[in-house]
Amino acid sequence: MAFLNEIIYLDNSATTRPCARSVEAVTRSLTENWGNPSSLHRLGMEAELDVTAVREAIAKRLHCTPAEIYFTACGTESNNTALLGAAHKNRKRGKRIVSTAVEHPSVLETLKRLEAEGFEVVLLPPEKNGVVSVDALNAAITPDTILVSMMLVNNENGAIQPVADARKRIKQVGAPALLHCDAVQAFGKLPFTAEKLGADLISASGHKIHGPKGIGFLYVKKGVVLPPLLTGGGQERNMRSGTESTPLIMGLGGALADLPDLATQLTKMTELRDYAVRRLQGTGVVEINSAPESLPYILNISVPGYRSETLLHFLESRNIFVSSGSACAKGEGSYVLKACGFDRRRIDSALRISFCRDNTAEEIDRLAEALVAATQKLRKA
Amino acid sequence: MAFLNEIIYLDNSATTRPCARSVEAVTRSLTENWGNPSSLHRLGMEAELDVTAVREAIAKRLHCTPAEIYFTACGTESNNTALLGAAHKNRKRGKRIVSTAVEHPSVLETLKRLEAEGFEVVLLPPEKNGVVSVDALNAAITPDTILVSMMLVNNENGAIQPVADARKRIKQVGAPALLHCDAVQAFGKLPFTAEKLGADLISASGHKIHGPKGIGFLYVKKGVVLPPLLTGGGQERNMRSGTESTPLIMGLGGALADLPDLATQLTKMTELRDYAVRRLQGTGVVEINSAPESLPYILNISVPGYRSETLLHFLESRNIFVSSGSACAKGEGSYVLKACGFDRRRIDSALRISFCRDNTAEEIDRLAEALVAATQKLRKA
Repeated sequence: MAFLNEIIYLDNSATTRPCARSVEAVTRSLTENWGNPSSLHRLGMEAELDVTAVREAIAKRLHCTPAEIYFTACGTESNNTALLGAAHKNRKRGKRIVSTAVEHPSVLETLKRLEAEGFEVVLLPPEKNGVVSVDALNAAITPDTILVSMMLVNNENGAIQPVADARKRIKQVGAPALLHCDAVQAFGKLPFTAEKLGADLISASGHKIHGPKGIGFLYVKKGVVLPPLLTGGGQERNMRSGTESTPLIMGLGGALADLPDLATQLTKMTELRDYAVRRLQGTGVVEINSAPESLPYILNISVPGYRSETLLHFLESRNIFVSSGSACAKGEGSYVLKACGFDRRRIDSALRISFCRDNTAEEIDRLAEALVAATQKLRKA
Repeated sequence: MAFLNEIIYLDNSATTRPCARSVEAVTRSLTENWGNPSSLHRLGMEAELDVTAVREAIAKRLHCTPAEIYFTACGTESNNTALLGAAHKNRKRGKRIVSTAVEHPSVLETLKRLEAEGFEVVLLPPEKNGVVSVDALNAAITPDTILVSMMLVNNENGAIQPVADARKRIKQVGAPALLHCDAVQAFGKLPFTAEKLGADLISASGHKIHGPKGIGFLYVKKGVVLPPLLTGGGQERNMRSGTESTPLIMGLGGALADLPDLATQLTKMTELRDYAVRRLQGTGVVEINSAPESLPYILNISVPGYRSETLLHFLESRNIFVSSGSACAKGEGSYVLKACGFDRRRIDSALRISFCRDNTAEEIDRLAEALVAATQKLRKA
């Protein structure tokens, strides 16, 4: 693979480059502190202390207690654990689950399983800006709703959902619902606390914030007890059995320690995103799909008339890496953009540009130039 | 943590020290090949190639096809996926599940969940040598048995179970049963192929063979389709959603590449274990709980009259690291030794000594001396 200074990596919502501090933490765990945290001797205890330190660092960020953080292998596992656990726990209290049509597949596919088990799943469509309206949310959350699952930031267009409003409504109608929030694209980017978000369950992942792939966590609010997804040795206080991945937990810790001040960084990202919008719109070939109020780390665009994958590979030939807007490889097009009401032409030509703290305005210039070149060199689809 | 040459690490069945090649492979993945395998561009493809190479290396060892290997986060996830998947898949064909009383908690606890769901779980007790008799197995596997789960090597005493006989009996009685084998303590130590073992499902883990903690795999025989445990983006051919932990997959690959010839190593381990048996029995204070036909990597012993934990901490003070025989911290004592018919005195004083290729006869001498010293300095419990 080319080194980062030779490539323009604008696919940071797919994954990020692990930062040096994260890599060092992984290596240190593998070479020095490789004991099994469950071992009763010192080598185990030292590994356990490593795990505890990272648990505390996460808790500090969410303004919660370390006991509310459970490590998992990924955002997908966190989402599966939260949804299956919450639904099964509340099984006797009702069948209604409210979510949105633009959730990540790890939520949508898991909700399908619950539907097959007999739960009633309501998926709210977003407005054009990608956001589900609070009115629609309020109407959907009924007194017999047992689970509400809403992502904080959409992975395709950066739309920020009104998670705290879901909490308000649950309280208002007296529903037994647990509130789950898939915060995989938000954690470490959009500042939030567990309390302000109001969620009982929050999913996050390490590799979206310059940590390693293979580590995530689930926040479970104190007092909420879920049946575990993985059973066995009783690790993670019986919530997630399996030997703790100490190297990756440490790697997540390294990534956390390296995060800039989120508010300051958010301002910088907004400037970069706004520059990108102006620059790309200035080309005359690009249309913007993300709403201005979206999280600036993600910018969804279209180059109408040119297919996403063709554009993606053209950009790749210039060492510029982005995502096709479509999560589906079979030509169905993005279900997220579809749910937002975009037409076929816009959906088929969508690209997801996703930033990290290392991206620059110069890289945006190169992207804009490349997209213009693409429209000149590629045949219209 | 002390460096390895300062410590005597005899707890290799709990976890092993990652080998240099494994650490290098992890680091290379984190720093060079950090793309998301699901990305459509080159960085994704290069990461995918890494994953493929390790999948092929595993397949080569099991004499199976790469398509039969699915990466998971740990042995526990592999066991949970196999058991829940197999039972639910065969739900309509019967309720009977046959396993042993000495399985790992990730099997036993998961079988408890299945029992609560209405499955009938039969747990066969072992003989004194830790092995379930083929007669008992044959009697237990009935024509309506839908799942048989049997570990290959026991994690506390190294007993090798007659897995291939279970296959024979399933065939003989024409049961619809899938055969699952938890091979976590066997893979990379005891030579076997998927075909000779006869299992439809085989679980293994990376950190028991000098790879990193947080990676495992499940072999699923061609033609067997299980409902997945984790649903979402459809990674691992829909069998295990979640972004692949490329660094740990590579780390597992590094560990595999560094494995010695298993047969040769097994001979060496047998010599070391036999030396340990002689040396420890020679002290006059140690009794041997593992049968001679057990896998030599694990030696379960007792120092009757002295409590396991007290002994463990005494040894630790001399930089010798072992496990207490008991997996249960609450003083219940090892359910494995109990099932084998050992008395309380033997169970309460049990220690698990577990070897790796780096251990030496000199280390055994130090262990023997330390145990003698322990009996001289510690009060009898």
